[in-house]
Amino acid sequence: MAEVGITLGAAGRDRAGRETVERDTPDRDAADRAREADAPRSLVVKFGPDKPLRLDAGVELSPFQIAYQTYGALNPERSNAILVCHALTGDQHVANIHPVTGKPGWWETMVGPGRPIDTERYFVICPNVLGACMGSTGPASINPKTGQPWGLDFPMITVRDMVCAQAMLLDHLGIDSLFSVAGGSMGGMQVLQWASSYPERVYSALPLATATRHSAQNIAFHEVGRQAVMADPEWRGGRYFAAGTNPRRGLAVARMGAHITYLSDVALHRKFGRRFQDRNNPTFTFDADFQVESYLRHQGISFVERFDANSYLYLTRAMDYFDLAADFDGVLARAFKSTPTRFCVISFTSDWLFPTSDSRAIVHALNAGGARVSFAEIVTDKGHDAFLLQEPELFAIVSGFLDGAAKARGLPTVRP
Amino acid sequence: MAEVGITLGAAGRDRAGRETVERDTPDRDAADRAREADAPRSLVVKFGPDKPLRLDAGVELSPFQIAYQTYGALNPERSNAILVCHALTGDQHVANIHPVTGKPGWWETMVGPGRPIDTERYFVICPNVLGACMGSTGPASINPKTGQPWGLDFPMITVRDMVCAQAMLLDHLGIDSLFSVAGGSMGGMQVLQWASSYPERVYSALPLATATRHSAQNIAFHEVGRQAVMADPEWRGGRYFAAGTNPRRGLAVARMGAHITYLSDVALHRKFGRRFQDRNNPTFTFDADFQVESYLRHQGISFVERFDANSYLYLTRAMDYFDLAADFDGVLARAFKSTPTRFCVISFTSDWLFPTSDSRAIVHALNAGGARVSFAEIVTDKGHDAFLLQEPELFAIVSGFLDGAAKARGLPTVRP
Repeated sequence: MAEVGITLGAAGRDRAGRETVERDTPDRDAADRAREADAPRSLVVKFGPDKPLRLDAGVELSPFQIAYQTYGALNPERSNAILVCHALTGDQHVANIHPVTGKPGWWETMVGPGRPIDTERYFVICPNVLGACMGSTGPASINPKTGQPWGLDFPMITVRDMVCAQAMLLDHLGIDSLFSVAGGSMGGMQVLQWASSYPERVYSALPLATATRHSAQNIAFHEVGRQAVMADPEWRGGRYFAAGTNPRRGLAVARMGAHITYLSDVALHRKFGRRFQDRNNPTFTFDADFQVESYLRHQGISFVERFDANSYLYLTRAMDYFDLAADFDGVLARAFKSTPTRFCVISFTSDWLFPTSDSRAIVHALNAGGARVSFAEIVTDKGHDAFLLQEPELFAIVSGFLDGAAKARGLPTVRP
Repeated sequence: MAEVGITLGAAGRDRAGRETVERDTPDRDAADRAREADAPRSLVVKFGPDKPLRLDAGVELSPFQIAYQTYGALNPERSNAILVCHALTGDQHVANIHPVTGKPGWWETMVGPGRPIDTERYFVICPNVLGACMGSTGPASINPKTGQPWGLDFPMITVRDMVCAQAMLLDHLGIDSLFSVAGGSMGGMQVLQWASSYPERVYSALPLATATRHSAQNIAFHEVGRQAVMADPEWRGGRYFAAGTNPRRGLAVARMGAHITYLSDVALHRKFGRRFQDRNNPTFTFDADFQVESYLRHQGISFVERFDANSYLYLTRAMDYFDLAADFDGVLARAFKSTPTRFCVISFTSDWLFPTSDSRAIVHALNAGGARVSFAEIVTDKGHDAFLLQEPELFAIVSGFLDGAAKARGLPTVRP
């Protein structure tokens, strides 16, 4: 039987008889990956020893840096800023060509001139989260104490740590109050944490396809992904930069599994059904016979070209730890008590990762806290990823919500 | 940070500097694994060169063997035999202590004296499926042409091949007609294939938690599991017996991912919630902090002690290929046209792997074919695995259905 499995490179053996892999796709080598982590092709702010970040894990991170992108212009009153928070595998490149992949930004449908988050009216800021690998300090960044990448010596971070670092970025930019904070999935967790930690700085909030805590099933899926990475011998206990390796196969498997959870049974059926790849009949081999197999393998392979395996471990862990009510003796309503923020909570009918019941729990807590809140469940078969896709109803709701909030805040409600 | 990942053994380096793993749990070595595959601790029938099996893949398998267990006694009329078909990771040890794990049989709640499938009334036969690793010929068996385990040289097999081999076993046992065929999941696929291929040999059929074809999402989950196995360097292109290795980590990851799909969000929440393991607070490490992580790791580790990685590849592939209607120009009703078999189709409300809609499709096709069919959707939060668990309603329905069929066939309806 022929070669099977994800073809990440041509396998061979070196003179000592050990297996080697020659890359047949252009792999970003260790130095290149480290460069993007430390010297990103975006804006970056460095916080020196005078501005340490006290982490939930009980240690201080210092120095550290936050990479970010901005779109549009801050108005003289500094009142039109919208913070966009990215999801697990996103980054700061919301609405520009991605410097590594060359692909469009991850939320160009939502953010840009004339888009629902209109960059001709609003000043949009998107920071790469702490722990990620596109320029904000994370496990792929150089640990100044050793001159080597942090790897697993990087302290565990939480969603609250991400938000604290973002608040320091806003202080640095001279922005006291955000007109809005918006994000889906892990981005939505940051939105909720922002509203809870800094209610006076958040005029309006758009948590999409998210929850105030990760479910047991979601923790379980994340754990399988982490184990897939750690099972790859090229992971080397997290010290793969020093070893000159990269746990690409493990990370690809993790991504493949996670990707299924971002879609829906119906969407997969509509897209692929049981159609065979490039042929009408089964091959009776382990080749990617079905189109859905080929699609998933592609998802895995393209992901490892742009993402750091240790960052994947840290960020999935941060999501697993997220439990907003836990900081308020388990009473979620207290997380939003007397909040001045206006909320628009959105869920999607076919999202089984963050089902509508999770969003309803947010709405109930906000209602109990007396908040202004609107809620929409959008009918779609696209699953969790619907928040990233062409969903006209989503765009209409976000536009309408922001228009209403802009009017209330005295911002111009038409484009200048 | 301390050791992380699934601890399958203590890692070290041999004198040549290569990484080695010293097992700290008793591993069944290659010879031991091969022995169970070829000389199982159960009944076994060997089919010689005079009885080849023509496979769907277009090749002949010969010689081959089928391992099986029986419970109860065949009546003089040979009319009380029930064939039990096992699921993906099951085997012939339905209702006896498992020779490898020492644990009870996988369906002791359903099969045994006084159970719904009552071994005091019925003669129960359960064969290990073709392609598996507990004594029926599969990739872990010795290829007589080479004297080495088949590995990936083993031909691809289908659910229909499994059923053809079972029919040969019944011929060997002198059983023309089965009183019933019962099974869940992949076992249910065999039940449906039996009813379609050999309607005159199947008096009644109990397909549980199953479908006439695997969905795109299910194929996707299987593909992730296969890639996890193949990504393990110890898999060695399927030749791990010869190499003296075993892709335990890859297979454990595959099992962990699959196990989530056998349960339900609600069941996981009820069982584990977000409870921490042996402590009240997060450790801020990659240890198994949450109980659900610890549980999953255990599932992965215990599975690899009893299952062959290549068998896992072959059997998942057989499930993916299963599409009963495809043999009838896509018209499922024709698969059961004028069937004399009585059917009892059962699904479970929280089964998202084989949802009730799959069972309804079976029922519709049977109705269109004029079959006698009863259908029950059992309300449970236990997910797909419910068919293996304590479900009193399931037991009552199976008992009632078999009693009715026994009466119709003139079998004694009370225990002798």
